[in-house]
Amino acid sequence: MRAAIVMGSTSDLPKLEPAISILKSFGVTVDVRCLSAHRAHAGLSAFIEEANSNGTEVFIAGAGMAAALPGVVASQTVLPVIGVPISGSTLDGMDALFSIVQMPPGIPVATVAINGGKNAAYLALQIMAVKHPEIREGLLKHRAEMEEQAMKANQEMIEKYQ
Amino acid sequence: MRAAIVMGSTSDLPKLEPAISILKSFGVTVDVRCLSAHRAHAGLSAFIEEANSNGTEVFIAGAGMAAALPGVVASQTVLPVIGVPISGSTLDGMDALFSIVQMPPGIPVATVAINGGKNAAYLALQIMAVKHPEIREGLLKHRAEMEEQAMKANQEMIEKYQ
Amino acid sequence: MRAAIVMGSTSDLPKLEPAISILKSFGVTVDVRCLSAHRAHAGLSAFIEEANSNGTEVFIAGAGMAAALPGVVASQTVLPVIGVPISGSTLDGMDALFSIVQMPPGIPVATVAINGGKNAAYLALQIMAVKHPEIREGLLKHRAEMEEQAMKANQEMIEKYQ
Amino acid sequence: MRAAIVMGSTSDLPKLEPAISILKSFGVTVDVRCLSAHRAHAGLSAFIEEANSNGTEVFIAGAGMAAALPGVVASQTVLPVIGVPISGSTLDGMDALFSIVQMPPGIPVATVAINGGKNAAYLALQIMAVKHPEIREGLLKHRAEMEEQAMKANQEMIEKYQ
Amino acid sequence: MRAAIVMGSTSDLPKLEPAISILKSFGVTVDVRCLSAHRAHAGLSAFIEEANSNGTEVFIAGAGMAAALPGVVASQTVLPVIGVPISGSTLDGMDALFSIVQMPPGIPVATVAINGGKNAAYLALQIMAVKHPEIREGLLKHRAEMEEQAMKANQEMIEKYQ
Amino acid sequence: MRAAIVMGSTSDLPKLEPAISILKSFGVTVDVRCLSAHRAHAGLSAFIEEANSNGTEVFIAGAGMAAALPGVVASQTVLPVIGVPISGSTLDGMDALFSIVQMPPGIPVATVAINGGKNAAYLALQIMAVKHPEIREGLLKHRAEMEEQAMKANQEMIEKYQ
Amino acid sequence: MRAAIVMGSTSDLPKLEPAISILKSFGVTVDVRCLSAHRAHAGLSAFIEEANSNGTEVFIAGAGMAAALPGVVASQTVLPVIGVPISGSTLDGMDALFSIVQMPPGIPVATVAINGGKNAAYLALQIMAVKHPEIREGLLKHRAEMEEQAMKANQEMIEKYQ
Amino acid sequence: MRAAIVMGSTSDLPKLEPAISILKSFGVTVDVRCLSAHRAHAGLSAFIEEANSNGTEVFIAGAGMAAALPGVVASQTVLPVIGVPISGSTLDGMDALFSIVQMPPGIPVATVAINGGKNAAYLALQIMAVKHPEIREGLLKHRAEMEEQAMKANQEMIEKYQ
Repeated sequence: MRAAIVMGSTSDLPKLEPAISILKSFGVTVDVRCLSAHRAHAGLSAFIEEANSNGTEVFIAGAGMAAALPGVVASQTVLPVIGVPISGSTLDGMDALFSIVQMPPGIPVATVAINGGKNAAYLALQIMAVKHPEIREGLLKHRAEMEEQAMKANQEMIEKYQ
Repeated sequence: MRAAIVMGSTSDLPKLEPAISILKSFGVTVDVRCLSAHRAHAGLSAFIEEANSNGTEVFIAGAGMAAALPGVVASQTVLPVIGVPISGSTLDGMDALFSIVQMPPGIPVATVAINGGKNAAYLALQIMAVKHPEIREGLLKHRAEMEEQAMKANQEMIEKYQ
Repeated sequence: MRAAIVMGSTSDLPKLEPAISILKSFGVTVDVRCLSAHRAHAGLSAFIEEANSNGTEVFIAGAGMAAALPGVVASQTVLPVIGVPISGSTLDGMDALFSIVQMPPGIPVATVAINGGKNAAYLALQIMAVKHPEIREGLLKHRAEMEEQAMKANQEMIEKYQ
Repeated sequence: MRAAIVMGSTSDLPKLEPAISILKSFGVTVDVRCLSAHRAHAGLSAFIEEANSNGTEVFIAGAGMAAALPGVVASQTVLPVIGVPISGSTLDGMDALFSIVQMPPGIPVATVAINGGKNAAYLALQIMAVKHPEIREGLLKHRAEMEEQAMKANQEMIEKYQ
Repeated sequence: MRAAIVMGSTSDLPKLEPAISILKSFGVTVDVRCLSAHRAHAGLSAFIEEANSNGTEVFIAGAGMAAALPGVVASQTVLPVIGVPISGSTLDGMDALFSIVQMPPGIPVATVAINGGKNAAYLALQIMAVKHPEIREGLLKHRAEMEEQAMKANQEMIEKYQ
Repeated sequence: MRAAIVMGSTSDLPKLEPAISILKSFGVTVDVRCLSAHRAHAGLSAFIEEANSNGTEVFIAGAGMAAALPGVVASQTVLPVIGVPISGSTLDGMDALFSIVQMPPGIPVATVAINGGKNAAYLALQIMAVKHPEIREGLLKHRAEMEEQAMKANQEMIEKYQ
Repeated sequence: MRAAIVMGSTSDLPKLEPAISILKSFGVTVDVRCLSAHRAHAGLSAFIEEANSNGTEVFIAGAGMAAALPGVVASQTVLPVIGVPISGSTLDGMDALFSIVQMPPGIPVATVAINGGKNAAYLALQIMAVKHPEIREGLLKHRAEMEEQAMKANQEMIEKYQ
Repeated sequence: MRAAIVMGSTSDLPKLEPAISILKSFGVTVDVRCLSAHRAHAGLSAFIEEANSNGTEVFIAGAGMAAALPGVVASQTVLPVIGVPISGSTLDGMDALFSIVQMPPGIPVATVAINGGKNAAYLALQIMAVKHPEIREGLLKHRAEMEEQAMKANQEMIEKYQ
């Protein structure tokens, strides 16, 4: 199981690091790259081509501002591409959101929330789980834990205010 | 190969019909439902539960306004859920986009463009292709055709303006 | 007199705590819960069902981002549901506002200002006052005090600048 | 059972007419007024004062643009005030939404969707149902019908696409 | 020469204090009030009525959020009313701007920039200058000084970078 | 009594024509010009200079898109300048609104609603009324008529729905 | 003198046709292409490479939605690239504007107004005029004509309303 | 080789200083001015006229809020004008962006990102490179360095996460 995470700038890393950890915790091999669609055009194409034939199953691409990266990746692969709009400009990620989600017909990008690195990882896992039942098991376990945690937080709130 | 398409209102159908056609043209069995998260709460839960165990591999959920549907589906499955914001209110789909894409950590929705029914289908196919190599072949063929068509349109433009 | 306050995340509590205090100061029994529509789906449904039959007269539901909670509560009760959009994402609560206020016909959510915990409480009291004359008395007294305070602030300003 | 519907302009009527019909169909006496906060200041105050003492249980106030009406009504009553932002300017009701929902602490307005006349009525009914069990019965019946209708639409969709 | 400055909340004062100073420096008598349209309804009406007959020539009204104050003042006077949208909510004054500038036909509010207390004063002075030639002189002198200062800043920049 | 109305494009005229009629109906001499800040720079300066010394008491400047006109007028006069944002681009006048209202300290523009030609005229009249008591009388009469009309519309609504 | 115009879709042509005409009327050789950054990735790269060495002096790139095209062109050339955001989605070109203008440091795109095909051409001419004095002459003549036309429209307005 | 940089306020300098440094590092003579379109109208016109005849090849104009400066410069020259929207108001530069980019036909402004001082410089250099091959060489070298740096950052990321 292999996933590729590519970001447009090293400043995007803090928002994507949770994605790396989550994927690794599920036993996924993660190739992490910093390859701007605008400043590392050739390097990006080379990486996508490589990923297309090395068993990579899903891309996560995070970028800010005029965030062309996820769409440019999507244009060179038919693997699913998850786009993470990163805030950072004065427009608070609205620019990146529009630049990533409003893709033209034929070249989709699976967009998650602004700075949504964690959900990019969970979505990638859900996608890989279509093929890998063990990931599905892990996700169901994670959901159960999340719900348990939620119910515990709820219990604390009940006790605090009763 | 099986996919589920659920919409919040029959008025969303015209934006999702292209998704149905595209999926069927790839040989995918498509279950189409109109089950509002707000008006058909129980029916929706029953359908998600059913889909969770009948081999469905991906959900497409389209909704407008306070578009809770994709997130509510995502909260009851670990299958990938693709969200399609539908325009229709005076806010032109911006309300639906925010309601779908800004999911909290742990429950991702793979959001496509406003009214992006076609891309929802292509994304669903990319996801299923992780497991099904024949879909990957179909997608590569579609890409080649799309590029061929694009280059033909380009050729016509060259001729028109030279 | 009984009201239910439910929030999507413990991080929403600071914005909703004023609502708890205000309601309690009017002698209302307040059930406080932290039950995300996305992460505690079953627990939320159980709580709504319980509230529907234990004499609860009004719901306050606060949530941020793709704030499905108020609408999901509203879809499972005919009690009035007050929605509080909570800021927190980079979109400053605009995402939560649209996700809460733009409900489809038949399932209203009574939306107050972003982070408007206090007004959620006053609105809940106004609603309960339809049945309970003593709350109406309390609200009229509160209004009189608020106006008195406003006129005092005005007097100080007159003195400061005359 | 009595409700007051007030609008800022006769051009708001088409968006509020569904509210009048729905309320009447539940046996509610409806006082309909066209009293702009800006152009009929004195007449509006007189009407609010009257409503405060004639058994009116809830206000619905609809207005567009710099929609001060709902807030001005709310400042002169402790009855619940439901605000309906009406589109009509080039800003598509976003101006009215902000003008109505962003009320300061102490004076809430229960805001519904832009042009949400129907939901204003259902919210008004939910509020009156706190006191009047027969309205609650009617609302539960309406919900059941709405769900039945939704499931029927779903059935048609299943048949269409199977 | 007399002007009235009214604000919705004491928290608006820092943004309006420059207006008070500027007006006073031109010899204008300034009546400063804190009278919320929502929380001090009666007191506000009394003050407007007073101003209408005590020689006040212009109003400045500053408010934030659902900023009804300037419009409510304008509805009770035919004196020019200058509206100052105050930021403060998470919407950064966009809510106040829309609530102030989008007035219906017949009741104008002369809106200045968000937090534009200074310009509210200069606009008030320009309005009073229509009648009072000495204010016009003062404004022309202020413009000359402002231009002089601007040219001096320009000179420093030339020197810094030559 | 003299007012100047200047617009950036002949396409702005329909939105400003009501202003011309209203001002004329109050006996104001109106100088109407079409002088773009961008395309008729010299002609605009000449007109402003002329207006500064021919007894003009107020400017109305309407423009769309990057609506520099009102601010450019304001930079060359100390007469009050009323700005009318005109819709017309795909941004529906939001661009013009921001370009007109967000003036820097020292150079105010009295901004009215998008396409608010009528209110520009009423604001101009309110400004001139500071000096001319007969205009004040006319405005009070207009207000009375407007209120009368409003109360008549209200009466019709009462009759329609009682 | 040679310029390249590239668009993402044939549906963008109506907004870019004025650019073609204007450039041709100045004697510029114009290469027109329809090469989507997403659907014709390889063809686009080939065209940019060709333009980089055939004497092309400036690019005009128009695209809608997640308009990556101008930035992708800019990443593969150091020729000036003019970006034209095209409306077409429900977001009215705001998505394309953000996707084009918010470029990261090092790779600028000279963005013009939404649907601003004409200005793209005039900007291209201004850029080429840096080298070609005859274009500068043509632009000065065009400005003079534009001003003359503006003054004529002004004269007609004077006559209409005097 | 000569470029002019003009800003509306000394507070804009930090966002434009990178532009000065970059241009100087390419051997360009840079004239830096602080000349507000609103507060230094005459001085600005004089400077533009001077630049039009002293060999200046490109303008960079940065301004915030109702940022008329770039457009006013553009209206008085046929040299290319690069506009830099500066944030600073509560609207985070959205006001300046709209005021700069939405220019009417005939008077283009080449708009770069909000606070995009660096890109303004690179765009200016690209424009001057049309005439000056040595700048083109410098830009190609800069691109190569930028790409090298990007690939080095990528290498570090590979090493960090492998």
